[in-house]
Amino acid sequence: MLSVEEATHCVAATIHSLPAEFLALPLAAGRILREDLHADRDFPPFNRVAMDGIAVRFAALATNPSEFRIERTQFAGQEPTPQLDPHAATEIMTGAMLPEGTDTVIRYEDLTFRTDEATGQRFATIQVPPPHAGHNVHRRAADRRQGELLLAAGTYLGAAELAVAATVGATTVAVTRRARVAVVSTGDELVAIAERPLPHQIRRSNALMLQAAAEQAGAITQAFHFNDDVAALQQGLPPLLTDFDAIILSGGVSKGKADFLPEVLREIGVQQIFHEVQQRPGKPFWFGQSPEGTVVFALPGNPVSTFVNFYRYARPWLLGVQQPAVTALSGVGAVSAVLAADISFRPKLTHFLLVRLEHSSSGQLLAYPERAGGSGDLASLLTSNAFLELPPEQELFPAGTVLPAWSFR
Amino acid sequence: MLSVEEATHCVAATIHSLPAEFLALPLAAGRILREDLHADRDFPPFNRVAMDGIAVRFAALATNPSEFRIERTQFAGQEPTPQLDPHAATEIMTGAMLPEGTDTVIRYEDLTFRTDEATGQRFATIQVPPPHAGHNVHRRAADRRQGELLLAAGTYLGAAELAVAATVGATTVAVTRRARVAVVSTGDELVAIAERPLPHQIRRSNALMLQAAAEQAGAITQAFHFNDDVAALQQGLPPLLTDFDAIILSGGVSKGKADFLPEVLREIGVQQIFHEVQQRPGKPFWFGQSPEGTVVFALPGNPVSTFVNFYRYARPWLLGVQQPAVTALSGVGAVSAVLAADISFRPKLTHFLLVRLEHSSSGQLLAYPERAGGSGDLASLLTSNAFLELPPEQELFPAGTVLPAWSFR
Repeated sequence: MLSVEEATHCVAATIHSLPAEFLALPLAAGRILREDLHADRDFPPFNRVAMDGIAVRFAALATNPSEFRIERTQFAGQEPTPQLDPHAATEIMTGAMLPEGTDTVIRYEDLTFRTDEATGQRFATIQVPPPHAGHNVHRRAADRRQGELLLAAGTYLGAAELAVAATVGATTVAVTRRARVAVVSTGDELVAIAERPLPHQIRRSNALMLQAAAEQAGAITQAFHFNDDVAALQQGLPPLLTDFDAIILSGGVSKGKADFLPEVLREIGVQQIFHEVQQRPGKPFWFGQSPEGTVVFALPGNPVSTFVNFYRYARPWLLGVQQPAVTALSGVGAVSAVLAADISFRPKLTHFLLVRLEHSSSGQLLAYPERAGGSGDLASLLTSNAFLELPPEQELFPAGTVLPAWSFR
Repeated sequence: MLSVEEATHCVAATIHSLPAEFLALPLAAGRILREDLHADRDFPPFNRVAMDGIAVRFAALATNPSEFRIERTQFAGQEPTPQLDPHAATEIMTGAMLPEGTDTVIRYEDLTFRTDEATGQRFATIQVPPPHAGHNVHRRAADRRQGELLLAAGTYLGAAELAVAATVGATTVAVTRRARVAVVSTGDELVAIAERPLPHQIRRSNALMLQAAAEQAGAITQAFHFNDDVAALQQGLPPLLTDFDAIILSGGVSKGKADFLPEVLREIGVQQIFHEVQQRPGKPFWFGQSPEGTVVFALPGNPVSTFVNFYRYARPWLLGVQQPAVTALSGVGAVSAVLAADISFRPKLTHFLLVRLEHSSSGQLLAYPERAGGSGDLASLLTSNAFLELPPEQELFPAGTVLPAWSFR
């Protein structure tokens, strides 16, 4: 039986980059860029006024230190006119282009104004002289030069990245397409959410859980349900292998007499990569790949097992195929957290322990173990927000131990 | 001029709960539940078999410790039949209802089987006896009792919560509706993304940035652009006050001659709550509210100022109105992080310092200061993922200082 580490390695080996697609920029939020974007102009593209006030020639301060005649006013977005008189000033607004003949901006807070009543001419008097030439000017190319790489292929497009792409006029961008995931539930005891279950039945909940979790990881999902019937599975599963990048099943992979899935999957050409992992919960996890490249995560059907296996293996896979820069699974999604209470676990299995992760006021990430009712206790997931990965070699984990934590909120 | 703390308090005072709406369960992912959901049955609803194997009466082990006749086989989803012979066994699958007349399950791994060739009768021999009655049985009501509160109003609906709601047959749920946000850019120097700017113009990027960030916080957004023109603002802004919960503007709130916004907003009936906050970047931030209750975040237009003010004030407001349980802004979105290098900042202002937050291998959240080019340097946001809030009273912040961090990825 594979260790968690070996299983992780096998899953990671099937990660391949999904193809790119072209999207209008506003629709590309949350995607991974698949092309390099360069500065089409200098950043800023001109000597940009950074404060509202007046623009002067710094050298003029030596001969004309007090009062400046306002030659004209220049707004942002106006085509600039050179300042004619080297000893005058141009009243100027933030975002405007610094006029030729000036090099320094003095802000309103450091000025007083007067108007000559006879001529209507305005004058500005400097109260706080600027420390150096170029003060309050955001110089052309100070941040980035024309042609410089701004966003490299592989960059996640958050709000700031979209704004940078907008600045260089990228109306359409190449991004990785979303993963297409079929979520399949099996089990004769399961009825639809809208149905009233008989005493020996329960409502289907895993499919909705997997759909929500996969979509939260960026995938497009579609749900299917098959009964525990070889013929239904033989007929229903093959079309999914051509239409989806991944199939995530829950149920039907244990040792039971109605657990036909491993057998059926092999029959329809999905090559088994592994079955069973040295872990609790979620040991009966089956993983394989079709000749077309579609991967199959066949997860045990107990809700907590399904959930933990999804976040430990399937979610990193989804992030991996959608984010080409990520080539290995190790660490994707896991952070280091400090165990806040003693824990013991004797079986020689990796133990996924439900915890509540909290940022302490001292800057530590603390993990508080939650009372859990076993892998069938769906409701136990509600009071936790992560699980810790406790390695199999150890039995006692004292408070203070640092362990990998997988967050699911 | 208000302190950051006072401004935060003023913004928080306008938080009110948005109305609820009813959604089909699969569409409710990421929303806040606005009704209590109770267990419609016990959890689990019957004595549920937790392992594939055989069910026996524990007491029978005393008299019949080795070999059990298999009376019949019971699958999950099948209506159960009582076991007739108290000394026999029922072969049984995970998820099935435990048959009457049995109380204990022994898994396949702890059994061997033989078939009598003459009669075809199957027998199971127990290799590892069960430790107690009830072994491998997930008892009815072990996790939750019928009528017990499962999900309280105010709960965030993640993947696990949707699954629990599905289990109790909640096909439609009441959730808080999304906030409606108008994103308005102003500035005569700005042209559309698809246009080729003249030398003194730049492309609009703030609107797209704010839209992406607001949608990431759960809001529905629509973008508008107005030139720096009093009449255009007087005509364009009033309809937005009736159609949206919040208006987020960028630009037009500084001391410049084209900064008409505070004046126009007051004219159209938006009451100013504050103008200017003791902070850098983003000091000229203007905040107000219309008689209808629509709030107006008028943010300075320098991209980094816009961005930081959005994440520090507007995002917590959006989370607050969409998540009724959140009644104060303090702490919403901020975590404690440990400064990884010495920083000095002399002005008596709260300083928002761009940093790269990283989880250290020892379980600490470390904040690495990033070289920043000032509030006009949009590209400086690309290498950071958060900002630290440095209080105004202090000038030197040695490495190791714990400070609030606002994450924006």
